[in-house]
Formats: sequence, C-alpha cells, structure tokens
Amino acid sequence: MKHRGSFSWRIGFEALAWIYWEIDSMITKDDIKGLFSFIPTPAKPGSERWDATDTVDLDELSRLTEELIQSGVDGFATMGTTAESATMTEKEWEQACACVVETVRGRVPVFVGTTTLGTYDTVKRTRFVKDLGATGAMIGLPMWQPATLGGAVQLFADMSEALPDYPLMTYWNEGIFRFPFPPPFWQQIVERAPTVIAAKLFGFFMIDELLQMTGNKIRFIPHCQMAHKHRLLNPEENIAFWSTEAAMGPEPVLALRDALDAGDMDKAKAITRDIDYIMETFIPKEGHGEFAKYNIQLEKIRMNEAGYCNAGPIRPPYHVVPEHIAEGGRECGRRWKALRPKYAK
Amino acid sequence: MKHRGSFSWRIGFEALAWIYWEIDSMITKDDIKGLFSFIPTPAKPGSERWDATDTVDLDELSRLTEELIQSGVDGFATMGTTAESATMTEKEWEQACACVVETVRGRVPVFVGTTTLGTYDTVKRTRFVKDLGATGAMIGLPMWQPATLGGAVQLFADMSEALPDYPLMTYWNEGIFRFPFPPPFWQQIVERAPTVIAAKLFGFFMIDELLQMTGNKIRFIPHCQMAHKHRLLNPEENIAFWSTEAAMGPEPVLALRDALDAGDMDKAKAITRDIDYIMETFIPKEGHGEFAKYNIQLEKIRMNEAGYCNAGPIRPPYHVVPEHIAEGGRECGRRWKALRPKYAK
Amino acid sequence: MKHRGSFSWRIGFEALAWIYWEIDSMITKDDIKGLFSFIPTPAKPGSERWDATDTVDLDELSRLTEELIQSGVDGFATMGTTAESATMTEKEWEQACACVVETVRGRVPVFVGTTTLGTYDTVKRTRFVKDLGATGAMIGLPMWQPATLGGAVQLFADMSEALPDYPLMTYWNEGIFRFPFPPPFWQQIVERAPTVIAAKLFGFFMIDELLQMTGNKIRFIPHCQMAHKHRLLNPEENIAFWSTEAAMGPEPVLALRDALDAGDMDKAKAITRDIDYIMETFIPKEGHGEFAKYNIQLEKIRMNEAGYCNAGPIRPPYHVVPEHIAEGGRECGRRWKALRPKYAK
Amino acid sequence: MKHRGSFSWRIGFEALAWIYWEIDSMITKDDIKGLFSFIPTPAKPGSERWDATDTVDLDELSRLTEELIQSGVDGFATMGTTAESATMTEKEWEQACACVVETVRGRVPVFVGTTTLGTYDTVKRTRFVKDLGATGAMIGLPMWQPATLGGAVQLFADMSEALPDYPLMTYWNEGIFRFPFPPPFWQQIVERAPTVIAAKLFGFFMIDELLQMTGNKIRFIPHCQMAHKHRLLNPEENIAFWSTEAAMGPEPVLALRDALDAGDMDKAKAITRDIDYIMETFIPKEGHGEFAKYNIQLEKIRMNEAGYCNAGPIRPPYHVVPEHIAEGGRECGRRWKALRPKYAK
Repeated sequence: MKHRGSFSWRIGFEALAWIYWEIDSMITKDDIKGLFSFIPTPAKPGSERWDATDTVDLDELSRLTEELIQSGVDGFATMGTTAESATMTEKEWEQACACVVETVRGRVPVFVGTTTLGTYDTVKRTRFVKDLGATGAMIGLPMWQPATLGGAVQLFADMSEALPDYPLMTYWNEGIFRFPFPPPFWQQIVERAPTVIAAKLFGFFMIDELLQMTGNKIRFIPHCQMAHKHRLLNPEENIAFWSTEAAMGPEPVLALRDALDAGDMDKAKAITRDIDYIMETFIPKEGHGEFAKYNIQLEKIRMNEAGYCNAGPIRPPYHVVPEHIAEGGRECGRRWKALRPKYAK
Repeated sequence: MKHRGSFSWRIGFEALAWIYWEIDSMITKDDIKGLFSFIPTPAKPGSERWDATDTVDLDELSRLTEELIQSGVDGFATMGTTAESATMTEKEWEQACACVVETVRGRVPVFVGTTTLGTYDTVKRTRFVKDLGATGAMIGLPMWQPATLGGAVQLFADMSEALPDYPLMTYWNEGIFRFPFPPPFWQQIVERAPTVIAAKLFGFFMIDELLQMTGNKIRFIPHCQMAHKHRLLNPEENIAFWSTEAAMGPEPVLALRDALDAGDMDKAKAITRDIDYIMETFIPKEGHGEFAKYNIQLEKIRMNEAGYCNAGPIRPPYHVVPEHIAEGGRECGRRWKALRPKYAK
Repeated sequence: MKHRGSFSWRIGFEALAWIYWEIDSMITKDDIKGLFSFIPTPAKPGSERWDATDTVDLDELSRLTEELIQSGVDGFATMGTTAESATMTEKEWEQACACVVETVRGRVPVFVGTTTLGTYDTVKRTRFVKDLGATGAMIGLPMWQPATLGGAVQLFADMSEALPDYPLMTYWNEGIFRFPFPPPFWQQIVERAPTVIAAKLFGFFMIDELLQMTGNKIRFIPHCQMAHKHRLLNPEENIAFWSTEAAMGPEPVLALRDALDAGDMDKAKAITRDIDYIMETFIPKEGHGEFAKYNIQLEKIRMNEAGYCNAGPIRPPYHVVPEHIAEGGRECGRRWKALRPKYAK
Repeated sequence: MKHRGSFSWRIGFEALAWIYWEIDSMITKDDIKGLFSFIPTPAKPGSERWDATDTVDLDELSRLTEELIQSGVDGFATMGTTAESATMTEKEWEQACACVVETVRGRVPVFVGTTTLGTYDTVKRTRFVKDLGATGAMIGLPMWQPATLGGAVQLFADMSEALPDYPLMTYWNEGIFRFPFPPPFWQQIVERAPTVIAAKLFGFFMIDELLQMTGNKIRFIPHCQMAHKHRLLNPEENIAFWSTEAAMGPEPVLALRDALDAGDMDKAKAITRDIDYIMETFIPKEGHGEFAKYNIQLEKIRMNEAGYCNAGPIRPPYHVVPEHIAEGGRECGRRWKALRPKYAK
C-alpha cells in the first residue's frame, strides 16, 4: 500500500481503489507513516444526558473526516478515548465506525478501536470493523482487573489467532489499563501475536530499544509533540506520529509532517515548540495522574473551543470535570485556533 | 416485603406472588437482610476460548439458583465480578439474568449487576433487569478513567433520575473502580441518588459511621467474614451479609446466619473462625493488590474445586492465572468442601 | 506493672518508684491498657525557618506531659509523626526524649519512636531511649525503598536480637511506609521478633484475626475513634487505644476510657459520636491519601487551635499546607475545644 | 572551572589548585559535562549486621575514587541510593564524604548527597560538605510524607536561601520520593531556588522541554543509556550523563563519552547497545516498581560481581533481596565484566 504515491490516480478511481482495498493483502508496518489523526465522535445536543439516544452526529463526523483527508492527513484512528468508544451504545459505535470507514473509502489507513471488557466482544467488534473495511483494529487491555503480563499477552495472542490476517495496533496507555507495557510484553507479543504491527504511544518511550526487542516488526507511533525527537533518533523507523490536535485544525501537524519528511529539522523543532505551547494548559498542573481522570473531557472541550469541528457535548459518565481543569482545555483550544493561520498554506 | 414471614403461603401461591411482586412497591432497605449469595455464571466446556459462543450453562445456573433457594438463602446478587459480567456477550448476559430472575420467581430479592463502561448502556441494562423482574440493580463505577467524586456521584444521580422507583445497590470495590468511596460520596449519594438502598462492601469498613452519615438510609452489606463483628457492633442495622462461598455449598454461611439471628454470638464467632481458615489461602500472600488481578479466576477455581456447582472454565481475558495463585484458590475450595458436613443439618 | 493500683503509694514514693522501674523486669502486653497519649514536640517561635536552632520548647513539653499525667492518661507514645521526629536534629530529638521520660518518671509507660532511615541508627536510638528509661521503642519501617515483607520482618528481627529484653511497638502506618502490614508479616513477627508486644494501628483492622494469628502476643492499639467498637468485639484484648487528640485536652478521651472500663457502652458510643464529629474536618475530603501528605501539619494546626498546649510552628520541610487543608485542621481544633467542657469532671 | 583544559598544570600544582578551588567562585551549569560516576560506599565485612560499626572501607573508597579519576571520569556524585547514604551513621557518612572529597582534591567536580528526613539536618549536612570542599550538594525530597509541589519547591528555596552561593543538584527519583517532578516544579525552581544548577534524572524525560521551561539554567543529566539519544537531540545542552556502572569498570562509559564528544554517533549508538544488553537483567522483569524495592541491593550485588571494586556487604535494612532479583544483578555484573575488555584502550 503506497498512499501518497497513489494519490494521483486515486482521485479518478476512488471506487476502484475501494474494491482494490478489499481484496488487497493486509497492510504492513511499512504502510504506517505520516500523520495519524485521532478523531472524536461528534455528539448531538443533549448527549450529556443519560437519556440521550442516537447521539452520533454522523454528518459532522463525515464532514470532519473528509475535510481531514482533503487536507492531507495520512491515516486515521478512532474509537479510543477521544472518540468516546466507552460510552456509546453498540449501535452508535457501529454507526460511527461505518461512517468513518465509508467516508475514507480506503484512501488512507483507518484503525478502529475495538476494546471492550471481554475477549468475546473484542473479537466480535474486530470482525465487525474488518468487515466494514477498516484497515485494522486498535486494541487496549482488559479493565475489570489491573492487567498482568500473562493476561495482556494472551489477549493479543487470541486476537492474532482469531483474525490471523488482520492488522492490530496496540493501544499503549498505562493510565487507562493499569499496565506498564514492559519489555517482556513486547518480546512476547512479536512471538505470540504476529498481527500486531503498530503501537500507539502516550508519553516518551525508548522506541529504539523497543524496535530492537521486536526486531523492527512494530511501528511505534508517538504523539506529535515527540515526533521531531523520535525522527531525529531514528529517521528510518520513526516516521509516523499521531495527533488528536488535528481535529482542532490540522495545519500545524501537517506542517510538522512536511518538515519532517523534508528533513527540515529546524523547522520541525520550531513547530514542536508551538505545539508545546498549546499543550501547556492541557495537562493539568497536578500531572498525568490527574489528566487520566479527565482525558475524554479535555479532548472534547478543547476541540469545541478550537471550532474546527463541532465535537458536541461529552457523553456520560465521563462528562464531569472541575472548572479549573476545563479552563485548561479551553485555553488549549484557543491557543491552537490562534496557531492555525501561521501554518496555513 | 417480608420474605421469611410469607414463605408459608407462598408455597401454594408462587404464581400469584410473582404477579404481586410485579405490581408491588419497591423493596426498601428493611427488606435486605440475611445471607445474600453472589453466584457465578456457569460456563460450558470450551468457554476459555476466544471463539466460544453461547457459553452460559443455563441448566447449571438454574439448578444452582434453585438449590440455594431451597437451602434457605435470603437473597441473590449476580452479574458482578464473580459472575463474569465483564466477559459475556450482551446476549449471554441477558440469558443469564433472565435465568436467575425466572428461577427465583420473586421468592427472595435478586440484585443484578448492570455496570458497563458508559451511562447509556448502564441505563439500558438496568431497564432490562427491571423489566425481567429483578429486585434491583447492582452498579459499579465507570472504568475508562479512575473515578472521581463528582463523576461517581453523578452516575448514581443519573440512575436515580432514570429509574426513580428502582432500588440500587452500590458495588463498592476500590480495586476495580480505583475510587475510595469516601464519606463525601455517601453524603452526596443520599442527597442526589435516593434509590441507592444498599451497598456491597469489600474489606472492613466503619459501617456505623456510614450509617450515621447516610441517616440509616442504606443497608451496608459486609462479607460473611465480617458479619459476626458487624452484628455485634450494630445488631439492628447490620443484619445482612454477602457470600460468594455459598456457591461452594451454603451450609456454613447458613449456619452463620442462623446463629446471628438467634443471637448466639459464640457460635457465630466459631463459624467465622472456620471461614477465616478457608480464606487463608484465597487472598494471595502478596495481599489485596495481587488479589485484584485474579479475583475472577480465584472465585471460579475454588468453586470448581469445592464441587457444589460446576462453574466451568473461566471466560477470557480474565482466565490467565499463575499456578501458585491458582493453587491457593484450589486449597480454599478443598477446605470449604471439607467444612460443609460440619454445618449440614 | 500495675499503674492504677499503685497510684496511691506512688504519690509519696515517686523517687522510689523510679528506681523500682529501672530494675523492674520488662513490661508485657498486659501492661498496655487504657489511653495512650501521642504528644507533639512543642516548637519555639521561628521553628518553621530552615535556620532555626534549639527548637524544642522543653518547658511546654514538660508541662504538657505532666498535665496529661495529672489528668490520668495511662501511657504515652512520642517521636512518631505528630512529634515531628523526622525533622528535629539528633540533639533536639535526644532532648525531647529525655524531657518526656524524665517528666513521666516511670509513672506510666512511655514508648518513644526510634525510626530512622537505617538499622544502625535505629539500634543506636533505641539504645538511647532504653538508657533514658523509656518503657519501649516505637518503630516504623525503612523509607528509602518501599518496604517488602522480607525487609520489614528482618528489621524487627534485628531489633529483637539487638535489644532482646526491650519492648517494641510496631508503628503500623501504610501511608508513610508504603507497606500493607499483611497477615504474613504478623505471623513472622511473633516468630522472629518476640520483643514486639504492641502495634499502633491507623484505620480499622481485623484485630481479632490478628490476635489469633499472633497467639494473643501483641496488643493492637486502635485510635480512640475505634476503641468502642473494638472493645465490643473483644472486651478482654482490646483494652488500649491511642489518641493524639488528648493533647488538645484529654477530657473526652478520658471519659471514653472510663466509660469503656465501666462497661457503659452506650456512653462510650455517645462519646465516640462526639469524636467522630470533630474528626469530620480533619481528614481532607479527598481522603486518606491526601491526609498522608499533610498529617504533621494538620496535627500541629489543630493542637494550636485547641489551645490546650502550645505546639508552636511546624518544622520544615513538612510545614507547607494548602489553606483549605489547614482550615480543616483549625475547625477540628475549634470543635475539640468546644467539646471539652462537656466531659470535664 | 575548566577541568579538562587545566589538567596539564594541575599535575604539578595540585595543592595550589585545591586552595584555588576553595576561593574560586561557584561552579556553573557549564562546568557539568561528561561522565559523572556515582560511586558506592564500600563496606567492611560484617556490615550487613545490625551491630556493625565503623563500616566504611575508606581504603577501598579512596582507591576506587582515585582509579576512576586516573581513568578519566569527569565528575562524581555520591551519597545517594547507591552509596547507601540512608543507612550509614552520621559519623560514617562524614568519613565517607571526607574521603571522597579529599581524594578528588578538586580535580573534578564532586556532588555529595545531603538528603535527610528534615530541613535542619539537610542544611547541616550541606554545610558540612561545603566546608569539606565538595563542589555541590545533591538533594532529594522529604520522605515522611509523599512530597507535594509546594513542599518540594520550598525545600529547595530554603536551601538556596541557606547557602546562596552553593550549587545544588536535584535528585529526581519518582520512586523514592513519591513525586512526579512535574513542569510546575521546574518552573518554580528557577524562580525560587537559583542555586539548583543540575538535575540527576532516572528514566527518559523530555529534557528539551525542561530546558526551555527553565531557560537553560539547569543541566539535566540522564543515565548513560540515554546519553546518546539526548546528545543527538540537543548536542549543545545534553553534554553530561551519569553512570553507576563506572564503578564496575569505567571503560565502556568512557568510550561512550569519547564517542559522543567526538561526534561519532554510530559508535555511541553501538556502545549504547552494549550497555542495553548488560542492563537487561538489572531491572526486574516486573518493571521499575519492583526495581525501586531493591535498587540498593542490586547496585551492590552487580558491583561485587563485576569485581572492579569491592563494594562489600549491603548495609541493613536494605540488604534483604529475593534470590531471583539478586541473580539479575549478578548476571548484569558478569556481563559488564565481560564487556570491559572490548573498550579498554
């Protein structure tokens, strides 16, 4: 799969490309590069209520997805924390997944989150997104118990057995899943869960060591704030990054991607500095432990403040947030909004 | 609702009682007393596999439920940790709920767990169990984020608004829900979530203080190991306890209940000592933090070893367990099995 | 050692009693009963400064100690958290220890905290307090590492070997020492550290089970808030409790002791309710995790507010405290002050 | 202070240099570069006993220090975790500090740890090491309470006020001090504690962001495993790293320093790979949480196994360690020993 190279012909042959995708062999690690946009699932007015129904604003979700593709993002991931996968009903989740996959129509890779509390349901959801045509599934860990090494590896081994030709992205989040994802996890994953081809990271990690441990079989994808550093450290492997910020207007992170691809590391660093600035108020001053309690709320709040998309209300029960935390999110949104023109083409 | 007192006429009028139940007013705190049995959801062979389907052994679930009623348990709770509510598919969960409620036929109260990752689904599941005829719902906290005071209270406030005449039992488990359930939680619950009439406890708590804070509006239900102590401390209020052990054979905990009800505190203490002994190997020696990683596994392992019911395999992904932990569970099951004859009538 | 029974003759023969104490055999668990007052180490003005020297207000320390004895407290413990043992210089610590022991002159038992970061120093300090004539030492766990079962037991085993005839009180505080003090700890302590005859508890514990595990060899001492409950549960063993509140004026806790000793459990419960009320604002609403960050500050703040003693400024570095936490401490002090007349004889 | 440049004349004028040092102005951040060796405090036989006295093997400490200087290390730090500062008596600590400072005689910078449980003692110890002629003090956080932002900043502000012309290195260790050292800490440190010129890091951090926040006023010093990466990311600022491994034989880390200084990043990376390999068994497979319980033990075990110095027994109470953890340390020592010849000049 060569997304950028095939853009030209795709414009005229989108329908064909879509079919081609269906019969194409599975994406590989090498296809994962550039800017992956993690998008919200816009909610209709009133969705903060326990009695809200049919909450997905499909028009806005489709519009946002299309606009991001037109802007040039390289891939999507959705149905994790930011997309409120935990709070939608199964039907809403299915609608939202279908909306994104169908809007993308194979033009770029789409990973869809299928984390649930149990293996049966995660298999079921993963099959669903595969059937939809999503590129792969993004999977976190069981949450009813603090995850253990044995249990965490077994889940991915089971998923590789269940869908042996379907790419998986590991959703590495220590705060949510109460698991440090230590070296032995990765060493066992490459042995027992060969369909894991990517891992979304939060925070800074020793990717180089991870690459070595895993024989370069997994694309470790850092947040855009870390993209410049990791590209410097390993220009061949660290070629992808993720951003929820793209849904506040993708210009800064697209500029970052282009600077990185052009090898203009000074410019990449300067853009990173701008991103650092907008992030200052996003993580509460009490640190990441506090952030973990309000990550869903903060993402939606800043997106709504930035105004690039209408993410709508926050779905319960993750809609409660102290005002001083919320204000940090709003300020982040305002800063991003002010930053966008600087990187508009 | 007066269960014991109405047993005599109920034998002949079960169908009527069932109808009466439907139209009866909501159960109150005063109806919650005696031994509440927390039962497993027996699994068919192969249920440890990711590709298992239709895993609920309904015959065994019904048989176990009926046998416990015949033995004299005072109530049930299910669809929490022990019942593997986290791992069943929605359809399996619905089948299991229906099986229990229909088997019980209103003869004793049944609380059914409806915890999910989001409020919409918890409302939906709670309505489902209400429609089934379950006495009330047992609800834990959101798990995608560590719970906060504001978020935890809001969830129960929402549930009280959603089902204003439906009794709730709070599922107090600090390990699973990463929340200490501190005094302000209970103070706010009685204000904002008046349908909460019971709380399942794990570990030892200052129930007396909680009763005062909540104006005696909530029945705090300790584990059978603590029942004797709490009855001593407050003979009027601490009249209910829970036990997962009953599903290994209820004789010891029934004897405990009878001793407590008869005011024979020496006998109650002696029974408690016997229960302490069987529990010695159940909680791993590393403590409750380690237990939280394997609580599902340990419950099923000891039940299968005790042999009173056939709990079947452990559903994934919570089926991985180190051998030394598993052996602690098996030894607990063996000890319980050996203890039962002592308390058989 | 029979303190109360020997009060009459002691008035005239204090010097003799003092000598007698020196040659007396070691105190046993049976001598630990009634109200143990945990006292502060009053600080002179300016002690909150890094350049303060000679900070111990020995006059006030002596006065407070004597007044509490005259009021009828049954024992003392000092040089733990409340006494700011962590922040005094060694010389200050020695002065304060000597002041307390010499003021008491053997009239009641005195346990003195000798926790340090290392075994050599803890042995040295324990020998020092033994030579002073203190009844025993109160010892916590190493803090440079989170304590482990093996390391925690070894420390007490070493202390028993180092001072084979000197009574020890275990300072059970999970927050400070990052250790859950699980059953295996106590099982090993009775085997390997026979000089441990008492344990100060924080929070509620299953003392009955601990007594069984340890063959009734250890006096487990709960906080005054729990004294009533534990006396009810085991009237023979649970005969001692501790209180830092006594240093705000001992009347309520003396009344509690007398009610418990007289078997007037209704009165004991009523007093406990009054104590519960003053404690409401002492533990921050965020819970015990937050309390652990400000326990020293809160104790000194409430004592100064209550005005029974002049505890003086808080020594650095544990003197920083947010205003809303501090206000909780002050309110607690005001409530205690208002409560005292009710229980004055 | 220009250490390398002034080596030539120093050989003949050591005494003069020593005097010069005394009257010299304070070292600045710019003087902190290259390899900082964190050394143990060798213990005499029997030091694992509670009754050991006079445990510091001063001959070995002096020999090790001198040999490392002769080998070319750029600086020292001591009296942190590895040096067992927590367990020595004050006299032993003073002897060990004096031994190191006097052996070094100002030829390279020496930072000496002065962390205690209280501010008075930390001021006292810091004055002591200043008077000895140590370059600066390395200071951690209070341990009796989990550190808070306010308290942590205040400690360093107090130290800057107490010794306004004495350089400090922050001992950043989240595991020991239960504090995440978040951005607001560093922002406030540069305002309120201007004598902090360096920070020892554990794990990977976003040094670039920290440099920006602190206006490049602090030298952030990573572990040797991270040195290559950080040099790549910021060749001008990230010019120092620390290593406890140097005390197992400094050749590999000296080679790393030389490669970094020569700009030979491929070689630096290759050396880092070798270091990664020896570290594989050092951090227990359970992760850094488990490491925090045994860091002292593991350092001494691997040093003794490597045989470059005789670190001697582990002082109590941090001498207890499970065999499988200890074996990880020994294997690490064996690997380092085998690695040294590869980098011997």
